[in-house]
Amino acid sequence: MDFLYSQKSKELQLILTKFMETYVYPNEQIFEQQLNAQETRWSDVPPIMEELKQKAKQAGLWNLFLPESDLGAGLTNLEYAPLCEIMGRSMIGPEVFNCSAPDTGNMEVLERYGTKEQKENWLVPLLNGEIRSCFSMTEPEVASSDATNIEASIKKEGDFYIINGRKWWSSGAGDPRCKIAIFMGKTNPDAPKYEQQSMILVPLNTPGVKIERVLPVFGYDHAPHGHAEITFTNVKVPASNILWGEGKGFAIAQGRLGPGRIHHCMRLIGAAERALEEMCKRVQNRAAFGKPIANQGVVQEWIANSRIEIEQARLLTLKAAYMMDTVGNKEAKAEIAMIKVVAPSMALRVIDRAIQAFGAAGVSNDYTLAAQWANARTLRLADGPDEVHRAQLARLELKKHATEKNFSTIKS
Amino acid sequence: MDFLYSQKSKELQLILTKFMETYVYPNEQIFEQQLNAQETRWSDVPPIMEELKQKAKQAGLWNLFLPESDLGAGLTNLEYAPLCEIMGRSMIGPEVFNCSAPDTGNMEVLERYGTKEQKENWLVPLLNGEIRSCFSMTEPEVASSDATNIEASIKKEGDFYIINGRKWWSSGAGDPRCKIAIFMGKTNPDAPKYEQQSMILVPLNTPGVKIERVLPVFGYDHAPHGHAEITFTNVKVPASNILWGEGKGFAIAQGRLGPGRIHHCMRLIGAAERALEEMCKRVQNRAAFGKPIANQGVVQEWIANSRIEIEQARLLTLKAAYMMDTVGNKEAKAEIAMIKVVAPSMALRVIDRAIQAFGAAGVSNDYTLAAQWANARTLRLADGPDEVHRAQLARLELKKHATEKNFSTIKS
Amino acid sequence: MDFLYSQKSKELQLILTKFMETYVYPNEQIFEQQLNAQETRWSDVPPIMEELKQKAKQAGLWNLFLPESDLGAGLTNLEYAPLCEIMGRSMIGPEVFNCSAPDTGNMEVLERYGTKEQKENWLVPLLNGEIRSCFSMTEPEVASSDATNIEASIKKEGDFYIINGRKWWSSGAGDPRCKIAIFMGKTNPDAPKYEQQSMILVPLNTPGVKIERVLPVFGYDHAPHGHAEITFTNVKVPASNILWGEGKGFAIAQGRLGPGRIHHCMRLIGAAERALEEMCKRVQNRAAFGKPIANQGVVQEWIANSRIEIEQARLLTLKAAYMMDTVGNKEAKAEIAMIKVVAPSMALRVIDRAIQAFGAAGVSNDYTLAAQWANARTLRLADGPDEVHRAQLARLELKKHATEKNFSTIKS
Amino acid sequence: MDFLYSQKSKELQLILTKFMETYVYPNEQIFEQQLNAQETRWSDVPPIMEELKQKAKQAGLWNLFLPESDLGAGLTNLEYAPLCEIMGRSMIGPEVFNCSAPDTGNMEVLERYGTKEQKENWLVPLLNGEIRSCFSMTEPEVASSDATNIEASIKKEGDFYIINGRKWWSSGAGDPRCKIAIFMGKTNPDAPKYEQQSMILVPLNTPGVKIERVLPVFGYDHAPHGHAEITFTNVKVPASNILWGEGKGFAIAQGRLGPGRIHHCMRLIGAAERALEEMCKRVQNRAAFGKPIANQGVVQEWIANSRIEIEQARLLTLKAAYMMDTVGNKEAKAEIAMIKVVAPSMALRVIDRAIQAFGAAGVSNDYTLAAQWANARTLRLADGPDEVHRAQLARLELKKHATEKNFSTIKS
Repeated sequence: MDFLYSQKSKELQLILTKFMETYVYPNEQIFEQQLNAQETRWSDVPPIMEELKQKAKQAGLWNLFLPESDLGAGLTNLEYAPLCEIMGRSMIGPEVFNCSAPDTGNMEVLERYGTKEQKENWLVPLLNGEIRSCFSMTEPEVASSDATNIEASIKKEGDFYIINGRKWWSSGAGDPRCKIAIFMGKTNPDAPKYEQQSMILVPLNTPGVKIERVLPVFGYDHAPHGHAEITFTNVKVPASNILWGEGKGFAIAQGRLGPGRIHHCMRLIGAAERALEEMCKRVQNRAAFGKPIANQGVVQEWIANSRIEIEQARLLTLKAAYMMDTVGNKEAKAEIAMIKVVAPSMALRVIDRAIQAFGAAGVSNDYTLAAQWANARTLRLADGPDEVHRAQLARLELKKHATEKNFSTIKS
Repeated sequence: MDFLYSQKSKELQLILTKFMETYVYPNEQIFEQQLNAQETRWSDVPPIMEELKQKAKQAGLWNLFLPESDLGAGLTNLEYAPLCEIMGRSMIGPEVFNCSAPDTGNMEVLERYGTKEQKENWLVPLLNGEIRSCFSMTEPEVASSDATNIEASIKKEGDFYIINGRKWWSSGAGDPRCKIAIFMGKTNPDAPKYEQQSMILVPLNTPGVKIERVLPVFGYDHAPHGHAEITFTNVKVPASNILWGEGKGFAIAQGRLGPGRIHHCMRLIGAAERALEEMCKRVQNRAAFGKPIANQGVVQEWIANSRIEIEQARLLTLKAAYMMDTVGNKEAKAEIAMIKVVAPSMALRVIDRAIQAFGAAGVSNDYTLAAQWANARTLRLADGPDEVHRAQLARLELKKHATEKNFSTIKS
Repeated sequence: MDFLYSQKSKELQLILTKFMETYVYPNEQIFEQQLNAQETRWSDVPPIMEELKQKAKQAGLWNLFLPESDLGAGLTNLEYAPLCEIMGRSMIGPEVFNCSAPDTGNMEVLERYGTKEQKENWLVPLLNGEIRSCFSMTEPEVASSDATNIEASIKKEGDFYIINGRKWWSSGAGDPRCKIAIFMGKTNPDAPKYEQQSMILVPLNTPGVKIERVLPVFGYDHAPHGHAEITFTNVKVPASNILWGEGKGFAIAQGRLGPGRIHHCMRLIGAAERALEEMCKRVQNRAAFGKPIANQGVVQEWIANSRIEIEQARLLTLKAAYMMDTVGNKEAKAEIAMIKVVAPSMALRVIDRAIQAFGAAGVSNDYTLAAQWANARTLRLADGPDEVHRAQLARLELKKHATEKNFSTIKS
Repeated sequence: MDFLYSQKSKELQLILTKFMETYVYPNEQIFEQQLNAQETRWSDVPPIMEELKQKAKQAGLWNLFLPESDLGAGLTNLEYAPLCEIMGRSMIGPEVFNCSAPDTGNMEVLERYGTKEQKENWLVPLLNGEIRSCFSMTEPEVASSDATNIEASIKKEGDFYIINGRKWWSSGAGDPRCKIAIFMGKTNPDAPKYEQQSMILVPLNTPGVKIERVLPVFGYDHAPHGHAEITFTNVKVPASNILWGEGKGFAIAQGRLGPGRIHHCMRLIGAAERALEEMCKRVQNRAAFGKPIANQGVVQEWIANSRIEIEQARLLTLKAAYMMDTVGNKEAKAEIAMIKVVAPSMALRVIDRAIQAFGAAGVSNDYTLAAQWANARTLRLADGPDEVHRAQLARLELKKHATEKNFSTIKS
């Protein structure tokens, strides 16, 4: 057991940290100002973003996320983890390096399961940062935490599929650059439970696709990204748009969600780490009741607990990444479930303490704390709520100690 | 000991509940729509609000908050508590009945400490719901949790005071109807620690008063109310605008904050109660993994714990109100501090569970959960952060068991 | 709503407090010393206990627990609550006043459901403090949290019942003065689910009753009381020993457990209150790192939170007692379930903080903290584990918001 | 970063696990029975222990703890960690392999700082498992969490030291095989704060050493080990008994406590892991309310959270061990402080959940849960209470972000 990062990862961490300090943090407020200066916050993407992307590309900090592929930077999940963490320190960080959700997950799906044609049309421009994508799975009418509940339909008609359904939380669909959705729905309601669903590529400019609205998160609109509610009404796409094959929806979801989940966790660790740093600075520069706030025992307890919780979450994330690299996403499912439960709650606690230490400033947008909190809160729901992951972990654990007699009766 | 509400309070609870169901809840979305239909969200107050206020006045549901005064509805704090709770179930509820912060606290200050002239000019129109007010105490540059840190100055010059300072979180100052600020600052930096500060009335249209910006709370702008950052530059007001007298700032603050704090707690209990109700409904109408979500043990645990926590917080709030009525705000300081710590955290937990039960819908604005959560979060900071109240409670508790020898050495 | 105790209760509180200070606390260590001085800790009851009982009887502090009966002191549950709390401050307190478990519950059962003969034989000597009793319900082989699991049998044979079964956690059966058990078992396994069980009186000297062992609680033997495992082998008792009638076991259990549960909660509040007091004293008399421990912010947070949690638990207990007095134990079931969940966990937290504040002394027997903690821990299990009460509360809450359609599908 | 154990460690894990299953677990109850069969529980050590020690020695499972020394098994801290964890699964485990506290810490002190003569006299028999030792540091009269409070005196008189003081929690001194104490006290009260204390070897049979009593832990006597209160009255030992030199007490304590602390953490992880296993088995073999307890959502949440918390604590422990091996105990101080805070609380939570899942059986001694809980609870105090470690962590964290200006004012 060796707890050191690889030399390659350490070098990239240095370069990336420098890049964040030089280019990203100083432009966070500018990004927001450019957004507000537009006719509406949805009119366009702030120009600073494309400038930063160009700089990142030049610095070789591009597509760092894609393991086991010639198309990425050739990093393992384990090597990528600390980099993703650093990017996650800023709400605008990941996109700068073309490493933001949901594109990374979608690109990984296209890389793993896409046809040559699908790759040319969608993966290449995504990798180039020319377009963006969304993932249309969750539906407003059903508890989508149980993916078998999903009701959208994908019906074969000749060389086409006809798609109908209402999706929401299609994150990124608000962005004018978003051109393609990975859509999940039922191709065969009569198939075995886990073979009813398929995934299919739906260009957003196809007739019948309508963005109904974008949903706020705790008051944040997340422009220009946006969490869209989209109706798909008799949307017709070529049969070749299907991903991998009919009935493969669940299999792809499993494959997609592993990396997607761990990327979120890495970013959350970065957000928590930054919150802790800012808290440490703030409390040393403000005084109350005759002494620096840093001298208050309760504040010291917050700091100590935050360090402890971040450290533990990071180690668990790294272990999960290591397992994905060595035994594969499927074998790493317990570890992925664990960090998916741990990281959002950890980040929420750490950021909440920082908010409390900042006083009223903490709930405003003068600092990124409140926005990062709101983001972290969604991740106790997105990609499976905590409760679903815990139930899975319990089943795995119970199985280890099941006798033939008792196990047959255990259900979630 | 008798745990029943008075007959009078019970009758008003029924009328008020009916009013909320008939007029308030159905207009929550309309309020928001009218706000969005304006040129900006700050242009004006949605017309529905003034309509609802007229209806409430006609129904005799007006100024219910003011105890021990001919000007209010003649209710004790204890009688008012369940009514304030019911109003607090809706973000737009309290204003409808002219019972919203910070006006109730400001009106109570004017009623207790105002001169005849001050009352005529400001209390009367406030009680009539014609104007609104703000409270300018907190400053961005210092830890205002320690009120002795406040640095704004109020200098006597002949028959006037000259006011200078930068304040923020002057809630309500964004509202076009907001006409008057109660301003806190130092009249005499050389006086004993708790006699340096004074409160003074500052009409917002006085030259030198500038609203710099309004601060968001977790992405919510809280329009048209608004949490303003205001600069006061050589603002000149008549000497008669002083409240009670020079050096009385702390004494008034103590008096003002008791009722203000408990009102917030009452409203939070209402918000929590509504969240629990909505959770109970939602989980019985959605299924996952083959059974209603309500059948999941973890969800049942959330419901049970929420009921338990609401019940306890309500009892403590009522006891504090009872003590304010019987032994006075000062003697009730421990109980007020206790509920000020308890209610916001309780509401945050209950609402957070409801959010989790609602899934992604919970973080959006389709329900009031996320907005209520954000509001509750600010109340772990506003009117004194939890930590300050806990330190006060600890001191009170330690004193009970102090020997002469040991007590002299105890400091916060 | 009136938060004051009745005059009668307040006077008794004063007398009782004085009695505790004069006689009970100073004899806690003596009780233990007398116990250790015997041949074994089970040989006999320390003489000091009978002395204290005589003193309490003379002071009129006897059988304070029995409401709505000529046989007790004529106090309501609400009047008794603060007295029971005061007794609960000492592990040896309740017995001194003939108010200890499981006798109070058993006496209440005999008072409510006993025949004239049963009362003469058992209730009278119990009320006199001449004998003690146990309650034999829980079984080692099944999850007794679900009382329908109970498997012991009570079979009618002519004018007798033949009893067979293995019970454990028959608390008090270790005491040489324990003469009678209330035994629960199945008289009719074919009856409807809640009518299969009956309760019957079993004198402990009946042939076939064998105390197999006494069970420790976190290392405490609880001598001379003792938590016994008892086998009942073809134990023959007169048919007239049945309580109320065959099939009434569940009905009696419901009636018995309400008062039993709330008494435990009252005592726990006393235990927590004493722990808080001792913590406040200790931390003002010890210094570390250059200042009294009381000056440490974290310790102050423990103190404040303890006060807050005790206060809330007490209010909830009082409300439950008030409801038992006014609408009856059955209607008060939600409130009883709530305090049964709240009080043990509250006491555990408060006592645990005190232990931490005491340092290593806290886990020893030099103070009563560790013993009280262990006792409180059992009460998250005894008389129904937390989880069962929470499930009941959730069902009650969900029912309030059930539509006809959804409710039929809700199960615990 | 590589999350695999070394081949050597993995092989030893297998052998050790087999040994535990074959010899240790089956003898836990026998150990207790032999203890009870003696005249008193303090008369002698149960013979089974010496038998098991012989078996362990033969199996090569002996003194596995001592890194960087020819005298141990040649394992690093990282290699030892999983082994120590496995031993810690049983309360009697560590001693079987001569790896129990406080001997491992004491042996490490003798190995690092002992003279040749000291090693011959004490280290050799300790390594052989012929004698045992205790560590006399904590004092009843002062808050020993601040080691500068320690008041015992060690005075030079010619070629001897005269020792006076009262110590308690000298764990292991109850054991008849315990022959030697490492005693901490002041040699020079006028020296700089951290050079006043020294450590010295005191044979327990020296005149003036008196074991006053043994202290229980939550009702457990921990015989034959025992936590002793010892008075030292004019105890005279040769000057050569001093360890390292006068004034080196703090320096040795720092060195000693690192390994001692992490060993405790490793054992606690083992205890937690076993509790989780037992919980998983139990809940699959008991039913309540019509289904296995394992099917209850709340129980599944306990299991999932337990797995998550164990996993994180283990990773942090391993990282701390890795750092001790690579950069040394001093550089690893933050990591050691972190696990010292994390592991006891984690174990307490996991074991407490198991207790709740076991029902009343959980608080008894039929399973090792209650005893392990009590043991874990002491470790939130022993070797520094949580609060001291958190304060240290906060200082380290604040320092990273201190400006020259602010840091000078920060105190714990």
